[in-house]
Amino acid sequence: MLRFEHLRHKPPSLLSRPRELIVVCAPLKSNVNLSNILRTASCCGVQKVIATGQAKVDKSIARDGAEEIELVVHRTLPPVLKELKIAGYQLVGLEQTTNSTLLPEFRFVRKTALVIGNERHGLGDDALAILDAVVEIPVYGLPYSYNVATATAMALYEFCRQDPQS
Amino acid sequence: MLRFEHLRHKPPSLLSRPRELIVVCAPLKSNVNLSNILRTASCCGVQKVIATGQAKVDKSIARDGAEEIELVVHRTLPPVLKELKIAGYQLVGLEQTTNSTLLPEFRFVRKTALVIGNERHGLGDDALAILDAVVEIPVYGLPYSYNVATATAMALYEFCRQDPQS
Repeated sequence: MLRFEHLRHKPPSLLSRPRELIVVCAPLKSNVNLSNILRTASCCGVQKVIATGQAKVDKSIARDGAEEIELVVHRTLPPVLKELKIAGYQLVGLEQTTNSTLLPEFRFVRKTALVIGNERHGLGDDALAILDAVVEIPVYGLPYSYNVATATAMALYEFCRQDPQS
Repeated sequence: MLRFEHLRHKPPSLLSRPRELIVVCAPLKSNVNLSNILRTASCCGVQKVIATGQAKVDKSIARDGAEEIELVVHRTLPPVLKELKIAGYQLVGLEQTTNSTLLPEFRFVRKTALVIGNERHGLGDDALAILDAVVEIPVYGLPYSYNVATATAMALYEFCRQDPQS
């Protein structure tokens, strides 16, 4: 008998209460990246993604994330961040900046807005000025930068690792 | 003055010695996924990826990972796994199986071969039979499965988190 047997329909992990994590994206260049982020966020139990700019979802990539997640699209990022701050969210950017904290050393709070920058330009100064914290992922080799959906996945994994149940 | 200022060319994290982590992929359906894996692995300081099947790299996706990483392509997976086991690697599959360990609870050893399954079929029984361990990533929402490159990124992040320097 095999020790490891494939399980195709394993039940998901249960949350004791819905996550209060929101993913907020600067206008992204690629809707493939946005769609990848939606799938990953949905798998992580995120209930809301706020996209900005010309956001379109490719359902063949986002899969059920396209229907399961509340996707809100706004024109620009800073007004969204200001509203979330007023609503009590800790605004955590994912970026290489001065005064950033390494992702594995950062302690997330429940009510977090994870703020994702553009593939090329990252987060603008107007957005950075509003953030409460910035996390960055250690990078050890070329091209010295993760794809934006990859970086988001690592940050979501770290969030869930710290709080597996809520 | 801004507290967080964008750093475009931050120096990478340094390893005290080269990682002995190898990523091994079952024949993948999508070379986009393989190419994404190469970029992420290269960023994580992985020096070797073994692909199987019809592996082709899209350099616009893999970026410098296409040149930086030693990519070896074999026809099938089980003989590769047997050789790695003889060479002293712990073979860790990334999959939903019986007797799997949740990724955040798994302790990696330095000399690890992370074994990645096909997008649709995962790892075959012939590969599963050779593995030393299987890790799976907690999933909380639909579609109840991560994209293969996303899951690989999370596992590589966890590996680097446990051993940030070697």
